[in-house]
Amino acid sequence: MNPILVNVLRGRYVESRHRGAFAVVDAEGTVVAEAGDIDRPIYPRSAVKLLQALPLVASGAAERFGLGDAELAIACASHNGEAAHADTAAGMLAKAGLDVNVLECGAHWPAYEAAGRALAQSGQQPSALHNNCSGKHAGFACLGCMLAGREDPRGFLLGYTQPGHPVMREVSAVLQATTGFDLRDAPQGIDGCSIPTYAIPLRRLALAFARVGTGVGLSPGHAIAARQLRGAIARAPFMLAGTGRFDTRVIERLGERACLKVGAEGVYCAALPELGLGVAIKMDDGNNARAAEVAMAATIEALLPLEGDDTAFMRGLSEPVLKNWNGTEVGQLAPTETLRRLSA
Amino acid sequence: MNPILVNVLRGRYVESRHRGAFAVVDAEGTVVAEAGDIDRPIYPRSAVKLLQALPLVASGAAERFGLGDAELAIACASHNGEAAHADTAAGMLAKAGLDVNVLECGAHWPAYEAAGRALAQSGQQPSALHNNCSGKHAGFACLGCMLAGREDPRGFLLGYTQPGHPVMREVSAVLQATTGFDLRDAPQGIDGCSIPTYAIPLRRLALAFARVGTGVGLSPGHAIAARQLRGAIARAPFMLAGTGRFDTRVIERLGERACLKVGAEGVYCAALPELGLGVAIKMDDGNNARAAEVAMAATIEALLPLEGDDTAFMRGLSEPVLKNWNGTEVGQLAPTETLRRLSA
Repeated sequence: MNPILVNVLRGRYVESRHRGAFAVVDAEGTVVAEAGDIDRPIYPRSAVKLLQALPLVASGAAERFGLGDAELAIACASHNGEAAHADTAAGMLAKAGLDVNVLECGAHWPAYEAAGRALAQSGQQPSALHNNCSGKHAGFACLGCMLAGREDPRGFLLGYTQPGHPVMREVSAVLQATTGFDLRDAPQGIDGCSIPTYAIPLRRLALAFARVGTGVGLSPGHAIAARQLRGAIARAPFMLAGTGRFDTRVIERLGERACLKVGAEGVYCAALPELGLGVAIKMDDGNNARAAEVAMAATIEALLPLEGDDTAFMRGLSEPVLKNWNGTEVGQLAPTETLRRLSA
Repeated sequence: MNPILVNVLRGRYVESRHRGAFAVVDAEGTVVAEAGDIDRPIYPRSAVKLLQALPLVASGAAERFGLGDAELAIACASHNGEAAHADTAAGMLAKAGLDVNVLECGAHWPAYEAAGRALAQSGQQPSALHNNCSGKHAGFACLGCMLAGREDPRGFLLGYTQPGHPVMREVSAVLQATTGFDLRDAPQGIDGCSIPTYAIPLRRLALAFARVGTGVGLSPGHAIAARQLRGAIARAPFMLAGTGRFDTRVIERLGERACLKVGAEGVYCAALPELGLGVAIKMDDGNNARAAEVAMAATIEALLPLEGDDTAFMRGLSEPVLKNWNGTEVGQLAPTETLRRLSA
């Protein structure tokens, strides 16, 4: 039974509550802090996109196609589908001589509703470029071009979302290498964008992010790739998520100090490089990001030494005020003592 | 500790889980079935809009202004903000000589994203008519016109969302009368549309809906009003919610057999008139409607004798398939044994 990590208050009364588990782990695998069951495998979903992007850099594909910060950041993103996101994903594909037609993630209206309305207003329909995973898939396509060798890249890429395809085998191999978890033992499902997702314990996910933040325990190629991706995300945080989004806001504020990424169903992972720690969180109900965001904000507050405006900024995210349609304050989210007791 | 009522599966593995409580009660207050804590007060939010609409009919306002089925149904609604919803709310106000400017619910883009995109495409901005509560507020305004007597109705209506206003006092009085719960003891908050919300135990909410379905325990005026509102909802279920919505789909299928209404934060209430029972559900995490819908569907399946296509239809709602952006089946929601063991 996982503990309550986040309460939702309306007035002064608890209206809803969110249970969950978290692990804070160093690059040796030592658990520094934890709550709940950190050994039950959970689907990390999009929280591990940075891990999945390591082969894009380590293979040399990013260098070969001249990918810059925005492109490396969006390769790790669950983005809003704003115009800049769709354009960046399209640009990546173009650099590899490809286009939207190779993407196998599916199309959907932008996750950011205002972007969807803007698209509709201009008379357009959404394409796979607006899929929140289009950057990751554009990265897979670039990786595939590298792996294709002398084969026709478009032919080679067909079915790249399937577990047995060379691109997915690279991606699964890096998940296994960084988490140290044997994926043959892992429950397996299909993710929202059609690639396989493997359930991995929080303890192992946090370890992988401690490794990403330090390079310790990674192959030399992965260590260099992780540093490049972290830097790109810190320099182009809008590409990781977008307008108003938690990941973008925190990274705009804290830069390379916190490399974090949300996943569907209440998952969060982060590297805190200066502390050599990785964090992994899963809310039991998984229903959307609100509770996982509060838990991640409270974890960062507890672990990272913050100064000046950064303190108030993070408190605003760990105890966000809820307003109604008239802008009246009606309540707030708040982390429980389990999170507030945390310390580095 | 409330039990797990709904599991979310990806592949064959449980990805997320939802705890909650429910009560099934007859009009005498006898608990027929229950799980979890049914005595802790919970904010019912929009699940009690039918109760809040009783004074609109019982006061004679609905008759005086000639409100039809669509208007009575939308007075009980959390609607999608589709064009027909906004038009119906506007029409109600016009019948009372009023317009959108009296509404104090606040404006927001339609809850149904396609309706928001259509609005944007036509170059419009949303008004309070697109607020999912606009029908309820239009009903409050009609009630206020009735209560205003010889006063100028627009002046009288000012501040109608405040607890001390005559309109809200009528609405609170009917909540207290139907649930039998003394609201002076109730935790109080402000709802999304700015009216007060009072926390009430599930046991009492289920009782109120048993009374709504049978008339037993209601004043004669409220009993007649409840029958009229139930009938109107059964004849105009689109107005209660809208395209693709659970409430609309179930009532389109089952008609007056199930008078149900979702509330924010994982709440559901229903009257099952032929059984003389009321149902009230609250999911602990409250994060959106998916788990409460599954719990309500499973409850209806367990309690109502279903035949032919209705059986498969309800099973489709109690065990909904989850598909990804490519339309691939990736998992499902499923009620736990706690719900599947239920019987009438």
